[in-house]
Amino acid sequence: MNSLLKSLLTTSNPFNSTGEVLAWIERRNREVEVKVKEVPFSQLRGWGFDAATGNLCHESGKFFSIEGIDVYKNQDRVARWRQPIINQPEVGCLGIICKEIDGVLYFLLQAKIEPGNINCVQLSPTLQATRSNYTCVHGGKRPAYLDYFRSARQDQIVLDQLQSEQGARFFRKRNRNIIIRVDEEIDIGEDFRWLTLGQIKQLMACDNTVNMDTRTVLSGLRFPADGDTCRGLALTDVGHALFASERQIDGQMTIDGVLHRVSELKSRYELIVDKIPLKDVTDWNVSDREIARGDRRFFRVLGVNVTIANREVSTWCQPIVQPMQEGLCVLFAQKRGGVLHFLMQAKVECGNFDVVEFAPTIQCLTGDFRKVATPPPFVRQFVDGAVKGRVLFDTKQSEEGGRFYHEQNRNVIMLLDEDFDIDVPENFLWLTLGQIKEFLRFNNYLNIQVRSLIASLQYVQ
Amino acid sequence: MNSLLKSLLTTSNPFNSTGEVLAWIERRNREVEVKVKEVPFSQLRGWGFDAATGNLCHESGKFFSIEGIDVYKNQDRVARWRQPIINQPEVGCLGIICKEIDGVLYFLLQAKIEPGNINCVQLSPTLQATRSNYTCVHGGKRPAYLDYFRSARQDQIVLDQLQSEQGARFFRKRNRNIIIRVDEEIDIGEDFRWLTLGQIKQLMACDNTVNMDTRTVLSGLRFPADGDTCRGLALTDVGHALFASERQIDGQMTIDGVLHRVSELKSRYELIVDKIPLKDVTDWNVSDREIARGDRRFFRVLGVNVTIANREVSTWCQPIVQPMQEGLCVLFAQKRGGVLHFLMQAKVECGNFDVVEFAPTIQCLTGDFRKVATPPPFVRQFVDGAVKGRVLFDTKQSEEGGRFYHEQNRNVIMLLDEDFDIDVPENFLWLTLGQIKEFLRFNNYLNIQVRSLIASLQYVQ
Repeated sequence: MNSLLKSLLTTSNPFNSTGEVLAWIERRNREVEVKVKEVPFSQLRGWGFDAATGNLCHESGKFFSIEGIDVYKNQDRVARWRQPIINQPEVGCLGIICKEIDGVLYFLLQAKIEPGNINCVQLSPTLQATRSNYTCVHGGKRPAYLDYFRSARQDQIVLDQLQSEQGARFFRKRNRNIIIRVDEEIDIGEDFRWLTLGQIKQLMACDNTVNMDTRTVLSGLRFPADGDTCRGLALTDVGHALFASERQIDGQMTIDGVLHRVSELKSRYELIVDKIPLKDVTDWNVSDREIARGDRRFFRVLGVNVTIANREVSTWCQPIVQPMQEGLCVLFAQKRGGVLHFLMQAKVECGNFDVVEFAPTIQCLTGDFRKVATPPPFVRQFVDGAVKGRVLFDTKQSEEGGRFYHEQNRNVIMLLDEDFDIDVPENFLWLTLGQIKEFLRFNNYLNIQVRSLIASLQYVQ
Repeated sequence: MNSLLKSLLTTSNPFNSTGEVLAWIERRNREVEVKVKEVPFSQLRGWGFDAATGNLCHESGKFFSIEGIDVYKNQDRVARWRQPIINQPEVGCLGIICKEIDGVLYFLLQAKIEPGNINCVQLSPTLQATRSNYTCVHGGKRPAYLDYFRSARQDQIVLDQLQSEQGARFFRKRNRNIIIRVDEEIDIGEDFRWLTLGQIKQLMACDNTVNMDTRTVLSGLRFPADGDTCRGLALTDVGHALFASERQIDGQMTIDGVLHRVSELKSRYELIVDKIPLKDVTDWNVSDREIARGDRRFFRVLGVNVTIANREVSTWCQPIVQPMQEGLCVLFAQKRGGVLHFLMQAKVECGNFDVVEFAPTIQCLTGDFRKVATPPPFVRQFVDGAVKGRVLFDTKQSEEGGRFYHEQNRNVIMLLDEDFDIDVPENFLWLTLGQIKEFLRFNNYLNIQVRSLIASLQYVQ
């Protein structure tokens, strides 16, 4: 059997058991002292408002900035608004090193502290670097393992994709999602552990344990067609169906059929986003304390002073984005014509690179779905328990803790009963897992929320 | 044999022979009187410079506008400049209807007049409509055949792709490239003819005959693997090799290998393009006569009054872009490891949707390659005849005549000798035709110039 498939099916790791990993994360959380103190922008060392534009920028001109955008879109209804957005026009790198040990592929994850995390430490990729990081603008040392990625040969690449970040918060931000395979012995730092894919998926089912970056990188993994070897293994009730559809590309609609629907929606829906000075963003107030709307909707930008005391003490200041509510992302699955399908929503988000991307069936992140007069499709039925099926996954997941402050969103995968009929609006499509993986290869078809859910699919009991 | 493949292999059309089609285009060119008169912007009816921004816009706010961009890029070397650009933030539709007659697929092309065409009439898609066209902003009648595209069912779609336009002239412009198949009888207007794909490819070998829109739409056609049926047919010397590589996806590098290289280049190369007011475009002078640089490089924007006298007279004013030189696009092909490969250049162009797209091996459009001190790779060798091989195709092709004035560029495909070794820079990749077609499906991987060349490949003697 292929070592990737073995990794997926292996949950007992002789080097680090899942229990030990959880205990290790807990210990790291205890050992480390993270102080995140809200400070006024006027005391945010290294940061300031540009006199001409009002944009909140770092004095080096690097890292990121908080700017304004003017948005026009016509999905559902014509809407035009202005809002602050994070502008970070560079491709960061999210990289995972993997290595075959005794026929099983192990992934090297890092217990990483990030200021926005609810629980300080989460499992992150081997390398998680902004371009500023790896060109050392901040004057720090080079990130660990960077050179493995820089010098990787073609045949060491497991996957290498450019994928989008949060489209409502970032202006067309993308990161490179890369997995490389090494054969040689490598030094393992004390913050790092080798884990199997099966283990990582188990850990994803624990609240706020595997960070967003790890989830997006792993979402793109494709498993070789190797059906027979799965027989008799401890797959979940739906594991077999999932495997079948992972290998099978075409469901009820072909890839070309999906591309046709996507072209149609991308030509029908308009999204015009112009960068504007932050000072021209009406409806939002900039005070020394925060950038926020008078009605306290959506999110606010605040300044924080971060101190991490561990073996050594480091301290820095940065702006960070805090959501005004806890979000909800739900992905519906259903066996249709004998094959498991997932219900994708083609969604226009203002920071999208290409008008629409596929989002989860339900994605309520920017506003409080309990309070809006006409909630998005399926929200009311889901909340009221009117959707007939079985919950496969229900976990709180954090957004990236380097930019988002205490943002956790409920992630749910729900398997609908086969005889539960639902009508879907024109921008919803049922895709098989095989199709989803094919679209993942070619970048910018699936948004970060749905990639996170796809990564969380549990195959093994 | 599949009817598309038959169409490709059929050059004798019982309904319209290629000779008749050429005579028909010539007759249409004689019959129609097209007057394109340069007029000062102050007399450009319906158009004017916006007081605040200096942008050249239509009074309806529709169609397109000439605005400014500020560009930063770091490919080759860091460069920053400002330039005018055409902004048309809507997806137009380029559609071709095809129909099977006696087992052969025929494509419905139109003899269309466009003001910028050197020779007035060229063969264009069945439908060539801006969104303004089909929402009738200009108050005209609905374009012919539009409703066939609007009501097409999933199973009638042959291809449906969003593809980029000229990246140095348009700001992230894309058009929908769509081919639909109809079964019913349809009325054929006097400007329309049914042609086989083989015929259209013959006609592409004539200067300025098949317009850019037709070429880009047809470039995405994929032929079913059906090798045996091609034996004994009158294929060109390289026709067999072309067929072999059209069906074979992987050459010396896999699709995932190419995606890896693309991700690497997209993360390394930065392209930051900000829209700015045209009045802030330094180095370019706006007079009543034109928008142009003092040194007369690149292109100029002028105003034209167009009168077309045919059965009825229509007249309108519009800005149009005129290049300062004739361009050169060359695609190198070579049999490598027994499979035909094409040498693609990953190129940053300022209007690109996604940083780099694959361009022809040589693409010299924006400046005069004879005059620059350090011409792009391969230009000097090509011009000096130092590239050893055989020219398969060498034709002057027009850019889109609705926006570009008398722009024709030399399009060359050259088959390098198998033993001719060339070193390629890091941003050049050898792809098979099968790989090229796969990237075409997923949008925005190949630029319009290389799509035009791919469409021109001659399979049949």
